[in-house]
Amino acid sequence: MKGAACTGFRGKQTQKHPCPVGQSIQQPQISWLLFVFFSSDIEISRAQSPKAVDVLAKEIGLLTDEIEIYGQTKAKVRLSLLERLKDQPDGKYVLVAGITPTPLGEGKSTVTVGLVQALTAHLNINSFACLRQPSQGPTFGVKGGAAGGGYAQVIPMEEFNLHLTGDIHAITAANNLLAAAIDARILHENTQSDKSLYNRLVPVVNGMRGFSAIQLARLRRLGINKTDPETLTEEEISKFVRLDIDPSTITWQRVVDTNDRFLRKVTVGQANTEKGFVRQAQFDIAVASEIMAILALTTSLQDMKERLGKMVVANDKKGEPVTAEDLGVTGALAVLMKDAIKPTLMQTLEGTPVFVHAGPFANIAHGNSSVLADKIALKLVGEKGFVVTEAGFGADIGMEKFFNIKCRASGLVPSVVVLVATVRALKMHGGGPNVTAGAPLKKEYTEENLQLVADGCCNLQKQIQITQLFGVPVVVALNVFKTDSPAEVDLVCKMAKESGAFDAVPCNHWSAGGRGAVKLAQAVEKAANQKNSFKYLYSLELPIVEKIRIIAQKVYGAQDIELSPTAQSQVDRYTQQGFGNLPICMAKTHLSLSHQPERKGVPTGFILPISDVRASIGAGFIYPLVGTMSTMPGLPTRPCFYDIDLDPITEQVKGLF
Amino acid sequence: MKGAACTGFRGKQTQKHPCPVGQSIQQPQISWLLFVFFSSDIEISRAQSPKAVDVLAKEIGLLTDEIEIYGQTKAKVRLSLLERLKDQPDGKYVLVAGITPTPLGEGKSTVTVGLVQALTAHLNINSFACLRQPSQGPTFGVKGGAAGGGYAQVIPMEEFNLHLTGDIHAITAANNLLAAAIDARILHENTQSDKSLYNRLVPVVNGMRGFSAIQLARLRRLGINKTDPETLTEEEISKFVRLDIDPSTITWQRVVDTNDRFLRKVTVGQANTEKGFVRQAQFDIAVASEIMAILALTTSLQDMKERLGKMVVANDKKGEPVTAEDLGVTGALAVLMKDAIKPTLMQTLEGTPVFVHAGPFANIAHGNSSVLADKIALKLVGEKGFVVTEAGFGADIGMEKFFNIKCRASGLVPSVVVLVATVRALKMHGGGPNVTAGAPLKKEYTEENLQLVADGCCNLQKQIQITQLFGVPVVVALNVFKTDSPAEVDLVCKMAKESGAFDAVPCNHWSAGGRGAVKLAQAVEKAANQKNSFKYLYSLELPIVEKIRIIAQKVYGAQDIELSPTAQSQVDRYTQQGFGNLPICMAKTHLSLSHQPERKGVPTGFILPISDVRASIGAGFIYPLVGTMSTMPGLPTRPCFYDIDLDPITEQVKGLF
Repeated sequence: MKGAACTGFRGKQTQKHPCPVGQSIQQPQISWLLFVFFSSDIEISRAQSPKAVDVLAKEIGLLTDEIEIYGQTKAKVRLSLLERLKDQPDGKYVLVAGITPTPLGEGKSTVTVGLVQALTAHLNINSFACLRQPSQGPTFGVKGGAAGGGYAQVIPMEEFNLHLTGDIHAITAANNLLAAAIDARILHENTQSDKSLYNRLVPVVNGMRGFSAIQLARLRRLGINKTDPETLTEEEISKFVRLDIDPSTITWQRVVDTNDRFLRKVTVGQANTEKGFVRQAQFDIAVASEIMAILALTTSLQDMKERLGKMVVANDKKGEPVTAEDLGVTGALAVLMKDAIKPTLMQTLEGTPVFVHAGPFANIAHGNSSVLADKIALKLVGEKGFVVTEAGFGADIGMEKFFNIKCRASGLVPSVVVLVATVRALKMHGGGPNVTAGAPLKKEYTEENLQLVADGCCNLQKQIQITQLFGVPVVVALNVFKTDSPAEVDLVCKMAKESGAFDAVPCNHWSAGGRGAVKLAQAVEKAANQKNSFKYLYSLELPIVEKIRIIAQKVYGAQDIELSPTAQSQVDRYTQQGFGNLPICMAKTHLSLSHQPERKGVPTGFILPISDVRASIGAGFIYPLVGTMSTMPGLPTRPCFYDIDLDPITEQVKGLF
Repeated sequence: MKGAACTGFRGKQTQKHPCPVGQSIQQPQISWLLFVFFSSDIEISRAQSPKAVDVLAKEIGLLTDEIEIYGQTKAKVRLSLLERLKDQPDGKYVLVAGITPTPLGEGKSTVTVGLVQALTAHLNINSFACLRQPSQGPTFGVKGGAAGGGYAQVIPMEEFNLHLTGDIHAITAANNLLAAAIDARILHENTQSDKSLYNRLVPVVNGMRGFSAIQLARLRRLGINKTDPETLTEEEISKFVRLDIDPSTITWQRVVDTNDRFLRKVTVGQANTEKGFVRQAQFDIAVASEIMAILALTTSLQDMKERLGKMVVANDKKGEPVTAEDLGVTGALAVLMKDAIKPTLMQTLEGTPVFVHAGPFANIAHGNSSVLADKIALKLVGEKGFVVTEAGFGADIGMEKFFNIKCRASGLVPSVVVLVATVRALKMHGGGPNVTAGAPLKKEYTEENLQLVADGCCNLQKQIQITQLFGVPVVVALNVFKTDSPAEVDLVCKMAKESGAFDAVPCNHWSAGGRGAVKLAQAVEKAANQKNSFKYLYSLELPIVEKIRIIAQKVYGAQDIELSPTAQSQVDRYTQQGFGNLPICMAKTHLSLSHQPERKGVPTGFILPISDVRASIGAGFIYPLVGTMSTMPGLPTRPCFYDIDLDPITEQVKGLF
């Protein structure tokens, strides 16, 4: 089996509630329509029995010892596969991105799932979807699930939306161990002499004193080339035992995977046992942890360990960076993350394979699922197969980061971008009224209005142009809603093609599954055979400010950028610390191409304000803040948990959607 | 297969590093001794390849659809098994408890593992060990692993000690969702009118307003027998929308599974978005969550859901209890816990089956593994088989709670108590010098000293007498160390038998595996056929104070108890709230029979001071505090993570012990 890729991905199953095959969305069968419109995502998910994950794994060419099964429907896939298939050519690599969305989202996940269902079950092409794991916090807050929806979703959706295989829990554990280590270390340094610290850090065990491996590494970094603890001078001991962390510079925060707004700002250390070393801190939602960004970008266990060690958590009192490695915790973090690094295999409603792996924030991080899942999937589908993955937010953010950060980390070259648009979002960009989550849509969105659509296509055009900056062909996928008129649909497709899209097709995957995305699949297949001249947007060697300016001007259409004094001094510090050659991860609103969410369409003439600049050194990027980014959601007055229940007899979950 | 129990538990495997069979501990082979003494627990664990968990599951009579495999060596077992085997008679039920321990621990876990290894592989009797899942916090702090040790451990020990199958992570998620819900609810009530709260809690969806199931339940509890949201009076609306929580009475704390001392006392809500509603709070280690105690005591999914709903998190401003059910979160908590309720199957070094399930604190909770794991194991071993489980701390605490709390919840009747003693602990009780973790043992403990042993046997005698209060036969297991002399060993066994033990035998399971516990297994088998007149120590109908007094006097040997005014007022409140009939879970030091850790042997004449009384209503017990109990450990100057590492090539974990 060495070197063999999968022999087939023909996973389509008989559905208990069959999708209407070959019908257009305008004339659905009434009985089926009733089922679709009155069924929640979880009901549709449950109506389909997933195949056993070991069967799925065998279908796609995995060997028995390459998977670790978690229950009936999930399995982790071992990285050893990459070694076995290293001579296998990669498949085609497709990114699903979107136009500037409404707050409701325009359906990138459903397009991703619909597209692989169409490719695999309808065009007989091996394909794989690589998706992000959602945070559990919003599942119980306002959002409900995130497994796609309708007939284009990952099943079982409750497994997808809840603990999955524990990756986010592992991140939480690793993140918080490091946080605890920082404060405990400061306390111990503040309350002990050099000698006492040394005696405890390098204790006598069975009559002998020895450095641990990670302590020897620290000594080498400090330029102390000694291995016998008895030979250090007092000055060397002091250098060794004191990290001398400046508490006001700590950037490492604790995390929970819960929407807990009361943890946005807290004071810690108020018990007597902490001897008055209180400080103000915050908790972020777990997926905002730098460890999540590392999981998404890492390429191997060795690489992950190195990245974990390089994470900068604070500066010392001389302004030098203090890392996880300095705290002696790299190995423990790697141990906590040893299973999380393996992608989780699941399936779509039509039995197509899916990897769910990593889900970093799309503002303070890069918002893309993992490099490792993509790499493994590209080997598994074989040279003619397709791997479809998704970038968070609009193409100006998610796609730009996908190319400049994720593709740089992986070395992979994308074949096609699918740009998802909706008539609803285009009307908003054309001047339609506000779209707000929870409020009913205004009539502009439910009745035909060709003018609003035509005016809004400027945003689509701009996002197409952004894609073209990177030299990759773009196919527009118009995610059709039942209120869209045929004339509106035709208009969007026509304007998209006039704007330079390779093709533009309407999709009905939500209501019709893979069958509703067959045209999209055909267009993507053709586009993948086009000439591809992929390139990054900027060279890493440019100064940080220059890289920010290129993104702001070329992608967002800003006139220029303006750095606050804080931002400028952070840029200077990172440059001086040797971090100037990292790529840039912009933390900007996704609701506008500009920094002002209310400016729809294609804003021009604005100066992009950079309020602060931060760094995720382990993940490997600098992130400029354009405005304030919330890293901890809250619970509303009526959280969705009011509807969530478990049937104690059937063990079925109710109320996720 | 319906109704069939397991056909055999003969799981002994060829060991790469064989245990010395039939040798006494005094004359070990030199080469083997070197291996044992220079091997860490993780090296011994790794030297043995565990059998695949599906093979193990088949051996013990589980059907394919009754297990959910997690990787190669762990599986969750479905509760449906209890229904299939409901007519199968239970096996014998053995509790491993201990004398009052030194801070080093006396080896209850190793005895538990050694005993089942001896029963299964050497006496050919089906047996099962049921163990607690350890908290991950101490694994990286001071303690290292908790899977037993030497040749009597659960393998792979790194899987046992790390995430396992995610149960503690699920508890953390559920615990913290409830915590977030409490603070968010207070904020929303404080910032909105009744009308606005009602509009949000019972929103108009598709033109209609409806209560969710959990809101209808709340209306019924409030005596409002209406189902149409439009018909509530203003007064009824106000009653419905306002939980009116008194923030000063909140007892529900957030948790993390990390030793993070800076979270012992914190102030939350300091961001502007929380509008000044700051309050002081604390984080506990995850295993201190009431949800962990519920997991350990629950008997079914339905029962767990009811217990989760009944958890009291605070009082309202009238002094009435506010529950998780009032907050509308019961169903969501049950959903988060739906997999955690299934015990995890693993194996010992000799291939004997082990359930790892739940690990509540042994002071503020009852310190015993789960009722469900015991129940399932008792069916699986069959009528002649043995299930061995363990109680935290000394018998005065762990065993007393096992009988009065856990056996009451399960209805199970124990057959035998194994009381673990060491020469070391007995010498300490006989007046030997202090034993401190991390410091070398004084010579009294490494050289023969029959007088200290003889004097210290009073503690063993007292713990035997405590066991006899419950009418269960007791076998003393002397956990032999290499420094114990034959005369010391003989003396302990003789005095134990004179004190009323059914038998007393030396055990060498740590160095010799199951073979080292064969005599213990034979004694336990005989004892299990003795007359058993098991009884609880007190009736639930007695007043709270009376129940506390019975435990203090009969078990601890106190002269009397003394309640602080706070404790008395809490007793009055719980009694008035209708919680007076719950069993008592004493939160007392385990280092003495009294409340003073330094008083060894058998202290007398003391008055047990009850400083406070708290309640875990969902778990179902009242817990009086005897002194201060820390619910959040810290990291020392040199946490064990300095030694923990992951080999990126072999993926092996190093440095756990």
